[in-house]
Order: sequence, then C-alpha cells, then structure tokens
Amino acid sequence: MSTIGQVIKCKAAVAWEHGKSLVIEDVEVAPPQAHEVRVKVCSTGVCHTDWEYLYGTGEGIEMRPFPLVLGHEGAGIVESVGPGVTKFSPGDKVIPLFLPQCGECKRCLSPKTNQCRKNWDKTQMGVLADGTSRISCKGQQVYQFIGVSTFCQYTVVSDISLTKIRNDAPLEKVCLLGCGVSTGYGAALKTGQVEKDSICAVFGLGAVGLAAVMGCLAAGAKRIIGVDINPDKFEKAAALGATECVNPNDYSEPIQEVLAEMTGGGVDYAFECVGNAAVMKAAFDSTIDAWGTCVIVGWTDRDLLSIDILKLLMGRTVKGTYFGGWKSVQDVPKLVDDYMNQRLKLDEFITHNLTLDQINQAFDLLKCGKSIRSVISLCDSQEKPEGTS
Amino acid sequence: MSTIGQVIKCKAAVAWEHGKSLVIEDVEVAPPQAHEVRVKVCSTGVCHTDWEYLYGTGEGIEMRPFPLVLGHEGAGIVESVGPGVTKFSPGDKVIPLFLPQCGECKRCLSPKTNQCRKNWDKTQMGVLADGTSRISCKGQQVYQFIGVSTFCQYTVVSDISLTKIRNDAPLEKVCLLGCGVSTGYGAALKTGQVEKDSICAVFGLGAVGLAAVMGCLAAGAKRIIGVDINPDKFEKAAALGATECVNPNDYSEPIQEVLAEMTGGGVDYAFECVGNAAVMKAAFDSTIDAWGTCVIVGWTDRDLLSIDILKLLMGRTVKGTYFGGWKSVQDVPKLVDDYMNQRLKLDEFITHNLTLDQINQAFDLLKCGKSIRSVISLCDSQEKPEGTS
Repeated sequence: MSTIGQVIKCKAAVAWEHGKSLVIEDVEVAPPQAHEVRVKVCSTGVCHTDWEYLYGTGEGIEMRPFPLVLGHEGAGIVESVGPGVTKFSPGDKVIPLFLPQCGECKRCLSPKTNQCRKNWDKTQMGVLADGTSRISCKGQQVYQFIGVSTFCQYTVVSDISLTKIRNDAPLEKVCLLGCGVSTGYGAALKTGQVEKDSICAVFGLGAVGLAAVMGCLAAGAKRIIGVDINPDKFEKAAALGATECVNPNDYSEPIQEVLAEMTGGGVDYAFECVGNAAVMKAAFDSTIDAWGTCVIVGWTDRDLLSIDILKLLMGRTVKGTYFGGWKSVQDVPKLVDDYMNQRLKLDEFITHNLTLDQINQAFDLLKCGKSIRSVISLCDSQEKPEGTS
Repeated sequence: MSTIGQVIKCKAAVAWEHGKSLVIEDVEVAPPQAHEVRVKVCSTGVCHTDWEYLYGTGEGIEMRPFPLVLGHEGAGIVESVGPGVTKFSPGDKVIPLFLPQCGECKRCLSPKTNQCRKNWDKTQMGVLADGTSRISCKGQQVYQFIGVSTFCQYTVVSDISLTKIRNDAPLEKVCLLGCGVSTGYGAALKTGQVEKDSICAVFGLGAVGLAAVMGCLAAGAKRIIGVDINPDKFEKAAALGATECVNPNDYSEPIQEVLAEMTGGGVDYAFECVGNAAVMKAAFDSTIDAWGTCVIVGWTDRDLLSIDILKLLMGRTVKGTYFGGWKSVQDVPKLVDDYMNQRLKLDEFITHNLTLDQINQAFDLLKCGKSIRSVISLCDSQEKPEGTS
C-alpha cells in the first residue's frame, strides 16, 4: 500500500528536554509540502554535535527548541516528493544535508564558499521553510534538528537540503558523508588546501580529526602528526595516514612546543577538530611562522579564541571551516564516488553498528571515547516502518 | 677625497634612552665589512614603529638596546661596499630593508612568504651579522634599529638588506617604500589578494592605512570604506581611493554593526592598520561570513586578539602581514617603477618635509595626527656630511 500523500507512523528517538536521554517514540511524519522530499532514513551516524546539542551547556541553550529529533548524518531512500520537486523521485538513494545548496544565491554562485543561507534561520530553529516541522508526537510538533532529523525512520527535508547519490552506494557506510567525515576531509583538502610534502598536525582524533588525517594524506602531506590525549585513537589514526601520534599528557611542556621541536619550527597546517578554545590556541601556536595555517574545524558556539597578534603578523593564518568547505549538493555525491572507488575510507570509521533503540548507548560510547562512529540502523528486519496511517 | 675604507663622521639622531627625545649627535660610521654596504642616507620617513620603539610601553621594552639610531624607511646612495659584495657599487641608488631577502633560504625560495630570517636574531637586537654595530658615538657602540638606522647620514647594512633602485627615482619620495606605503599597499594586493568588485574597509587612515586604501583601489575594489576617529584624515583617504569614510565616534552602535548595515552583512576584506587589539576585533567582526578576510597590518608585540570562534567557523579568515608580503629585494624596485609610472602614489603621503635637526617635531606631528608622513632630509645644503676622519 502506497504511503504517498499519507501521514506515516514510525519510530523516532525523541529528545524531550535538554540533558535527558533520548526516548524511542511513535511519531507521525506528514507528507512533503512544496519543494520538500520525504525520505525513509535507513542509517544514521551519531555525531558529537548531536550530543552537544542535547547535553552541552552554554549560551545557546535557551534557543534550543524541544522536543526535537536529532540526527544529521544519515542516508536513505526517497519515499515521496512534494509539489515542484524535480530532482528527486521515489526510490532514489539520498543523503540529507544540514547545509543546503540552493544553487542560485550569490554564495552558491561563488567558488569561495559553500555557505548557502537559504532557509538558514528556519533550519537553525528546527523548522522547515514554512516555519513548521513535519514530525509530531502525541499531538505535539517535534522540531527537526538543523532541518534534518535523521534519528527518525522517516523525515522530510527541503529539496535543497538533499543530494542524490549512486544506486549502488551502501547507505550504512555513506551516511557518514552527511557530516563528520566530509567535514574533516574537506578541512584538509578544501579549506586548508594542504600542499604536497607539507607537515600537518591534527588535534583531536575523533571521526572529524581522523577524516582530516585522511584528507592530509590525500593531499600528499609528508608528515601527519595526530594529537590526542586518548592514545587508544592512535592505531586508527595510523591506519588512516598519521605518520606519528603524540599525547600531550606525555610531556611537561606545552604541546605546541613539542611540535615545534619535532618539526624544526612548527607545522605547515594545523587542524583543530575538538571544539575547544584552548586546543585551538595550541593548534595555532603549533604552526610555523611565515606560512602556517590553522584551520578551526571543531564546533563551539560560545567561546572566544585568543591568539598572539605578533604570531599573526609573522605570517600565520587562521580560518574556519563548515562542512569541510564542500558545496553540499554537488560535492557529496563525488565523495560517495571516492568511497566506491576506494579513494576515501569510511568502513574504518565505523566502530559500532546499533539499532535505533540502542541510540543512547551510541552517545555513551562517544562520550567515553570508545567509539569513532556508531551507525544506527533504522530499518532492520526486527523494526520495519509500520506503514501508513 | 674618498671616504672608502675610512670611518665617516656625520650627524645622527641618537636615541639615548627609552622615553627621551632624540638628540642630534656627531657619530662615527665604520667602513662596511664583508657582505655589507655603506649607504649615504639622503631621505627618511618617520614611521610609527620608530616612535613606538622609543616611547611605547609594554613587554618588549627590556629587550630594547640603547643607545640606538632609529629609522627604517630611508633611501640613499651607496658610498662603498665591503668584501664579497657583488650586487652594489658606489653611486647606486638604494633603499635599505629591515626585512632581508637572502634569496637562498627555504622561505626565499617559497612563493608563499616574504619572511626571510637570515640575520634575524641579530637585526632584531640592533646589530649586524657579526653581532656588532657600525655606528658609534662618544666612543660607545650605538645600536642599529632592525639592522638599518636611517636617522643617520650614513649607515651600514647587510647586502641582503638593501635593494638597488632606478637612477631617476627621487629619493625624497621613494624612501616611503622602505616601510609604510609598501606595507599597506601589499596588505591589500599581496596578503589580502583583494578581488575586483569587492567591498573593503580600512581601519586607521595613517600612512599604512592610506596605502591599503590605494592597494584596494589598484585591485579594483568597488567600495573602499575608510574608518578613523580623526575625520581630518578623510580628505586624503578620498584622494587615494576611499569611496566613503566613517568615524566610529559618530555612532552609538559598534562600528562593525555600522559597517554590516552599510554593506548588507559585512565587508569582503577588512584591514586593521592601527595596531590595537580592540580595533582588530572590530575589523574581524566587520567582515562578512562565508568568505570575509581580515588582514592584520598594524603592529603590536604585546597583545592577544580575541575573536568569536563561531564567526571563524562561518567562513572567515584572519591573517597577518609583514612588509605587505613583498619579497623585499625583488619587489621594492618594482614598486619604485610603479611610482615612476604613476601607478602608485607617494607624494600624497608626504605632509611635511623636515631636516634632521627637526626630527623630534616629526614625532610630535605623527602622534597628534597632524602628519601622514614627514620626510627628513639628511643631506640638505646646510648640513652636508662632514667627510672622513
């Protein structure tokens, strides 16, 4: 029985309030409206940003709407499309995008940025372009995290917040290209524009940092130094391209001094993939004068970065990256191709495969540093979508 | 009578101690040693950095050697060369360079930087490569400010800290290419790489800022907004290319908000030409997200720049510049050519022509915002070098 045009009842992990575990609930997902697409979400990664939004503290909290469905690193199959949608058809394999690419605005037309702002104010507030969400639970509207919500068996997204990928792509792998891996990989290749034979340091060896390591390797860096206080990450970093790893806790002097000594003055490129202002400063300080570039990749919305002006004047650059600088709609399918052609690794990032009802475990694994990425299956054989209302 | 090989007695403005006015003294300038060149200094600009070194307060003070001869924005004529010097001959018109270009080190061979470090530790301490100065006064060694010392009728510099310029160049104009004008002009053209039709803001309309305005114009910027709390600077800024000027004191809201409103979100490029951490933050904040670039041009060696991490993540870049990114030996002669071909202005920067014994007036004019550049003549008819010992 076709679900097109019907409200779909399915399972979702609902965040009812800040600081509380997710609850698996029956939710209702309305049909897509104009220029929207309803997607059957098959797999989703669990990203630190999801955790941060739910459990993090800071200025932004009062702005966060609840209840909501988190998740922004998913892959799925188009179930139906709303009026005016021309680029998607039911059955297409797709990756929802928290960063849209409308293709028409000044930003989309510029080669200098990927930061399309179409619908931005709305998606940041957890709603779609018309100011409402398509997900509800117990009669109550449930917000959609950054316009996506992949912790739900079905979601509805804007057609500029979605990209079609090749039909042979394994969704349980390529879902990671919806956020973390693309972000770190692009930080090195697109934003940092790492040059061949350069020396790089990557601070923080979670999924984003490991992807940055992989990006540095792809760019031809001759030394890639992983930096993490958790040495359990070092084996994986080496597998993805790190030529050496250092643990700041093993040294009495600041890590930037250690790196300067290791490299004869500093690294050419440093990537901060933690989201911590002190680590950002250390990353900046670890770059060599004259041409050192520090790319801020880790997310934080509440801190200031304090850097030494003289070090800037001596030729250093600091820049930020968002989604790795990739233009989302056009570039993510190319990254999927790179994975399919063994030019980009994804399997190595997946340490745990879980089901939707195990999703709080994924957060626990993330926070205690035991996982790189947990991938949640949303439509395994035990838990099929329940069909239409 | 030839002065070659002889100690030259001449006049210099000597800085005897921190915070005290310069004193015109008879000094002795020794002959050039290996790979050194003795230059008859004809003209010198008076730069804010000279003032800062003498009168400024801050961490660096205890490192500053006295007595010394300041001045680093000069032009002159080669008087004699030491052993091993192949690129200069007596009579060559030259500009001394506080930033060397050895042409052989990794930095000189890289297109990414102009920051040659040959002799760096020595010149920063006010001596030449062998650890001594060539200037003495009353039997005491007088240090040479950043290895140059153009507030002296003769100076001796390393042959990698000097560039030969065309013979028809007026020294009393092109001396300004030794520091301020080159720095600001290059900040826009080389470091910022301002693109055609972009919107720029220049914070601080002294010589460096005005040169940045001129650089933005040369790059084809469509709007160049001058920012200064001294509206007396606005006329000159307009003459050099500013399309509009704003005085932060005319607004109740922060200047970055004013600029955001004027430009529909922020400027593409902001240049801080003051050397003040708060102004740097305002300059950074005034850039548009997605691709805004803030170039730190103003000098300070003692502050931290605190910037909003989220603003970085949204696609902004901060970078520093030193001598405008120009490779000193090779690029300064080209800038002289640009002046001679009316592609670069210098005359407009010169508000006062003074003699060496008026040099403290030049500092006064600079500090009260009445001058852009004072050019000091060191060998006018009243005050000829006294010849040899």
